[in-house]
Order: sequence, then C-alpha cells, then structure tokens
Amino acid sequence: MLRSKILNRIRLLKPVIDRRCMSSASKTPLTLLEVDDKSGIATLSLNRPPVNSLNIDLMNSIIESITEIEGNKSRGLILTSANDRVFCAGLDLNELHKPNQERLKEFWAVFQDVWLALHLCSVPTAAAINGHAPAGGCLLATACEYRVMLPQMTIGLNETQFGYMAPKWVMLSYLSVLPRRLAERALTQGKLFTTAEALDVGLVDEIAASKEEALAKCSTFIDSFSKANPLARSLTKKQIREPDVQKLIADRAGDLKECLEYINSPLLQDGLGAYFEALKQKSRSKAGKS
Amino acid sequence: MLRSKILNRIRLLKPVIDRRCMSSASKTPLTLLEVDDKSGIATLSLNRPPVNSLNIDLMNSIIESITEIEGNKSRGLILTSANDRVFCAGLDLNELHKPNQERLKEFWAVFQDVWLALHLCSVPTAAAINGHAPAGGCLLATACEYRVMLPQMTIGLNETQFGYMAPKWVMLSYLSVLPRRLAERALTQGKLFTTAEALDVGLVDEIAASKEEALAKCSTFIDSFSKANPLARSLTKKQIREPDVQKLIADRAGDLKECLEYINSPLLQDGLGAYFEALKQKSRSKAGKS
Amino acid sequence: MLRSKILNRIRLLKPVIDRRCMSSASKTPLTLLEVDDKSGIATLSLNRPPVNSLNIDLMNSIIESITEIEGNKSRGLILTSANDRVFCAGLDLNELHKPNQERLKEFWAVFQDVWLALHLCSVPTAAAINGHAPAGGCLLATACEYRVMLPQMTIGLNETQFGYMAPKWVMLSYLSVLPRRLAERALTQGKLFTTAEALDVGLVDEIAASKEEALAKCSTFIDSFSKANPLARSLTKKQIREPDVQKLIADRAGDLKECLEYINSPLLQDGLGAYFEALKQKSRSKAGKS
Repeated sequence: MLRSKILNRIRLLKPVIDRRCMSSASKTPLTLLEVDDKSGIATLSLNRPPVNSLNIDLMNSIIESITEIEGNKSRGLILTSANDRVFCAGLDLNELHKPNQERLKEFWAVFQDVWLALHLCSVPTAAAINGHAPAGGCLLATACEYRVMLPQMTIGLNETQFGYMAPKWVMLSYLSVLPRRLAERALTQGKLFTTAEALDVGLVDEIAASKEEALAKCSTFIDSFSKANPLARSLTKKQIREPDVQKLIADRAGDLKECLEYINSPLLQDGLGAYFEALKQKSRSKAGKS
Repeated sequence: MLRSKILNRIRLLKPVIDRRCMSSASKTPLTLLEVDDKSGIATLSLNRPPVNSLNIDLMNSIIESITEIEGNKSRGLILTSANDRVFCAGLDLNELHKPNQERLKEFWAVFQDVWLALHLCSVPTAAAINGHAPAGGCLLATACEYRVMLPQMTIGLNETQFGYMAPKWVMLSYLSVLPRRLAERALTQGKLFTTAEALDVGLVDEIAASKEEALAKCSTFIDSFSKANPLARSLTKKQIREPDVQKLIADRAGDLKECLEYINSPLLQDGLGAYFEALKQKSRSKAGKS
Repeated sequence: MLRSKILNRIRLLKPVIDRRCMSSASKTPLTLLEVDDKSGIATLSLNRPPVNSLNIDLMNSIIESITEIEGNKSRGLILTSANDRVFCAGLDLNELHKPNQERLKEFWAVFQDVWLALHLCSVPTAAAINGHAPAGGCLLATACEYRVMLPQMTIGLNETQFGYMAPKWVMLSYLSVLPRRLAERALTQGKLFTTAEALDVGLVDEIAASKEEALAKCSTFIDSFSKANPLARSLTKKQIREPDVQKLIADRAGDLKECLEYINSPLLQDGLGAYFEALKQKSRSKAGKS
C-alpha cells in the first residue's frame, strides 16, 4: 500500500518534465550528466553560471537528470557543481523579486518537485560539495543521503539573515540530518557553518581535500550498498522519508499559498529591493573606478 | 496560514494576564524585570522565596513579564533566579495537595499558559541556571533556546521519583533538547543530572563559574541573532516548535482532565500527604532541638 | 485517558497466550525464566536451538514469559540467550518460505504482539546480548530500555541484504535508539554493526567481557530505577513510546496486509528459495566430504 502510494506519487511527478533545459544564452546545458561505465555511478553537475542559482530551468534540468538516472540503471547519483567556488547559491532571487504571479506559482511548484525528486530518488545519492552551499544549496545537499565537503566552504539554511523563513519541508530536511536542538538554533540564527563546523555537528559526513577526492568518497559511500537489494533499499529509504514527504504532499496547495503570500509581502519584497539596489550601487561604483 | 494561526493563539493567551502579581505577604514582586538600556536585553528573575516554587501567582507574573518583554522591543530574554541556590524547585506542591477543584483547574491552565508563553516567546530566550532546577524548574529551562548553568547544581525531570508522570508536553520539551534514547531513560529514572552530566548530554549548553558569567554567556547567545531578521527569526522558531505546541493546543481540555484525574488519585495524594507529614516531623524535631 | 487506553491495549494482547510453548522435539521449554530471589530480577533466556530463530512458538513463549514477569512482581527483566554464539538470528525463514496463508497471518500477528509486549513491558528491561543479533534479534534488543553486548558480535537491521524491507514499526525501534541520519543509512545499507561500532553510535550502551558481566551490568541498570515509583515509571515509559506504538496499533490490519503481500511476492520468495537451495547444496557437499 505504502509502496504503491509512493510509487504513484513519483510517477505523478515525472510528467512535468519534458525537456533537458538549456541556458537560453549559450545553449549549454544547465546540468551536466556523466555516467561512469565502469562503476555505473552517475555524476550530475550543476552548470548555471555564475553561482548555480535555482531558477525554473535549472530545477527542471535537475529533475530531468534524476529521472534519467533512475531510468538508465545507474548504481548511484553524485550531485556536484561545475563551478569550483559555489556548489549552489540557493533560489534565484530574480524569480522572487516583483514576480509575475503565474510564473511564481510555477517556480514554487518546481521547487517542491526538485525536493521530492531528490528526496525520494531510488538510487543512492551523495553530494560532493565543492563550493559554498547556502540556503537552497544546503537543501539540495541535505536531501542527499551523504555529504562530502571541501575545506573552507560554508553551508547552512541562512534564510533568516535575509528576512525569510525557510518553508516547513526545507526545515524537515535539516532536521533529518541535525539534532533538533542544533537545528532550531542554526535555523533561527540563519547560521552558515564552515566546513569544519559542519563536520562537527554531522551536517556533512566527510571532508575531502579536492573535488576528485570528494567524488571518490561519494563513490565509496555508494559502494556501501553493494550487498543491499536495490528494490528493498529504495523502498526502505522511501519508508523512512515518508513522514516528511507526506507533510508536503498532503498540502502542496497550502504550502504554495502560504509561500506566495510571504514572497509577495512587503517584508520580503522590500528586503529584496534593498538587496538589488545595493548590488547595483556596488557594480556602478566598480564601473566608476575602472 | 500557519503564521497567522500561531499569532492568533498567542494573542488568545495574553488576555488571561491582567496584573503583575505580588507576593501576598511582603508585596514585593514575584518576578523582577530589568532591561539593559545598552544591550536591549531583558533579565527576568524569579523571586518567590524560599525556592521559587510555581504557584498561580508566580506563573502569572512570568507570563506578564514575557508579554511586557515582547511588547517593549527587548532584543532578548534571560531567565534566572533571584535566589542563588535554587533556580526553581518546580510546581508548588501546596497547589496539588488536597486541592480546591476550581483553583486546581486554574492552576493547571496557567501552567499550560506559562509553557506556551515561554516556548513561543518571539525574542531569543536563554536560561542562566544559577541554582537547582528539578521538575518544573527544568521545564522552564528547556523551554528556552539556550542554557548556561552554574557548577554543582542539578537539573532534570525527576517526577517519577515522587510518584508523578510528567505530562506529555513537558516530556516534549525534554525531547526537544535530549536524544530520544537518553530522554526516555532520564524520564523513567526521574534522573537529576549534575551540571557536568547535563553538559555532557546537551541538556545545558555551557557552564559558567558565576551568575555574572552565566548572564554574560546568555547575552552572547542572544547576540548571535544580530544578523537575523527578528520577524523571520520569530516565525522560524514558531514553525519548528509548532508540532509540540500543537499537541497541547489541540487538546488542552483533555490534558487538563487527564491531569486532574491523576492529581486527585490516591497515588499522588498519599505520596504528597506522606511528604508533607515528613516535613512537619522534621520541623517539629528541629524546633524541639533549638 | 491515555493511560487507560494503553492498559486496555495491553490487556487485549494477553488473552492470545495460553501456554508456555515447548520445543516439539525435545519438550524442553523454548524460553527459560529465572527470578533471582534476592534482587527480584527475572532473566529470560531464549532457548530454541540452534540460533533462536523466531517462530510462532518461540514468540508466544516470550510473550508468556513477559506476562508472567509483569504478574509476579519482578523488579526488572533481562533478555538474553541460552546460546553463547547467537542472541537471536531473527525471524524463522521457514515460516516465510512458501507459507500456509493462515499460519502466516498468525505468525505476523504474533510478531506484532511480541514487539508490543516487549516495547510496553511495565518493568525495566535490558538486553544482555551474548551473541549475534541480526534483524529480528536486533529488534528484540532495541525494544528493551538498555543494551549490553559482548565483544566481536554483530547487531543490526540487515533486512535489505536479503531483499526485505523492515516493517515501519521495526524501523521505529531503530529510530528510538539511533539518530535519524545514521538510522536511515544503516537501514538502507542493511548494516551489521560490530560490537565496537554499535557502542560508538549508541546502538548498545555498554560492552561486557563475559555473559556474567553483561548480566551484572543489566542488573545495575535495573537498579537505577530504585528511587522511581514503579507505576509512575511504567506510565512514563508508555507515554514516551506511545506515538510509535500507536502507529502499529492504529493499523495492525493494514500492516498485516502489506507484509503478507510483500512476503508472498516473487521478490522475497525467489530470494528465500535461492537461499534454502544454497543451504541444501552446502550441507550435501559437506556430507559428501565426510
């Protein structure tokens, strides 16, 4: 029952994706997908310069890649970044500032979808965090089953620092990794953990000196399932994640409504306005200097 | 939706408080409230001699002070004791022994209210535990977001040691701080942790050598929110605490009924009777000696 | 309310047991029950050679022994094995392979019952794990309140390694002991922890050099409740375990249906068939050699 219900939900997710999204300017793909023929492990690299911020197209591309990986009998999925400074900077704030309401609805639904797709992905998932991972970047990492991070990066749900409350299901991903006491504190502070701090509290599982080493450690994690039956493994993962997933699925419309209300509020819009204005000033002053 | 529901609930809580309660004998206030003009941090000191046991008046005074702090734009709340040996000894057993039923109902409702008020307080909260904190004293501390404790004190939900089962929502505060395995064990044993043991399991976050140092460490914790947007912070805190709060709010009447039944049971009344008799004997024998 | 509901449920459990089960061959009891007159502690030894695999009779015998211990005013229960190599090897696979459907239904109901009986046992429970404890053996241990293990043994819910998904309530026992992040990983890997690894993650609480030392450490744990009121202790234990227990009790029929479906699936039956075939080959080849 549970199993078939979950499988149906995943099937319902899939029809929304019908294309590998291309960056509109350069027509280079927004995600790069490589499958190692020897190991059978797929590496999915976020590839939307400059900082892999999550817009509709990038999230659709991630979902599509996950679907492809689940379909092509890959043994596991490693999520990483084509950019060696930023893993993922979080939601694309351009999607949130003075938004077209119809596009905003689509944006939020795709954001829910990418979380569901990664959270319930049937193959083992690991994140090779080769750059900063604030906000939505941290969410992608915590939706995976294992995290390896490079030194001197930062990770965390820092939403409160820019006037935003992380949605409930984003918070649940954090709680699935951190003890409740520490999760509450970090969420309310909007804390960005350094790599060393993240290892200390369990937010990441290992540190690697280079991207290559991070990928190798992720592969080793995926190999730890070699004796497990893949179907039993996948059903077990879904079962343990079911309560969190249910909380979103049972009220996707309510979550959407609540978040739209919040995103359209002066609290968030004024904050974003000030942020974009500051960016503009900064770039003007740079232009003046050069 | 969630946010407005929570805010409504908090508003519903407030009308019950209409006075700063005074100790009936001396007319000194049962809580002392000081706001540091420079830091903007409010210190709320429990001030009901001899051991800050929680009766209706003290709890109303705590609730009123929290309301005041939330209203006067304080940046944070530090809960401490005016007594340097006991932080808070828990519920006033006189309220429980051979109780007037109407007063007992009011007592229990105010006990629920003080938990809700502290648990959902919109500003950062920290406890400077400058004395023993058994039972209800531990509850006040765990309802805060941070705990700093003086050496050689004790803290814990020790209800089973005097024949009482901690109510479900009191247990939830413990579970929000301790791992489930350790919380079950400590709750069933009625364990009082020493300061060192409490630090070891995470029941307190830091140890301080003096009350001044404890207050300073609590201030530093409150300062850790300086970069967070206060409204986003407050909503985030409420969201993560919502499931626990809901469990009480959804059934306040049921919780009241169950607890009255239990308090009126021979199990508890006989235990309390024996306890008060022993106290009387002890004080008579002391009087005989002097 | 909660209390009487729980007590009723426990009463409902009891009528199913009407006999101390004997091993059909030897007529030796499947469990050995000894009560230490001095300490008042009961030791329940699993005694179904060769590896204490859980069939209907052994599980009924465990339930009956628990009922006896709860009735005879024992101060605590230590669960151990009469076999010094295997604590309990888990479910008897003969009950699952090509099963008679009526017997399978009974088997599954008794499996649920043994979990409920141990999970809610009113006296303190501790497991002296003097041998390997895979799958159902690990479940019995995690349903106790404390675990002491001998060196160089293994313990874990390794179901995915033989193509099986542990039922939700079995998973909940794991989650009551391990942090969520580690529980998910171990469950999906089907990991068997060595004694040292189990201590490290908190799956066991202490290591003992011998069975005698393990029993002594379990006794010390049971003594830690000496100051707690037994009734308040028992109600507190039930309250903290209530959410997990509720998840099974609210849908015993659904759990049964889902598990029967799964056990009867080709996935599981083919896996079991291959396993039994391999065992047969192995024993033939041994016979050929000797």
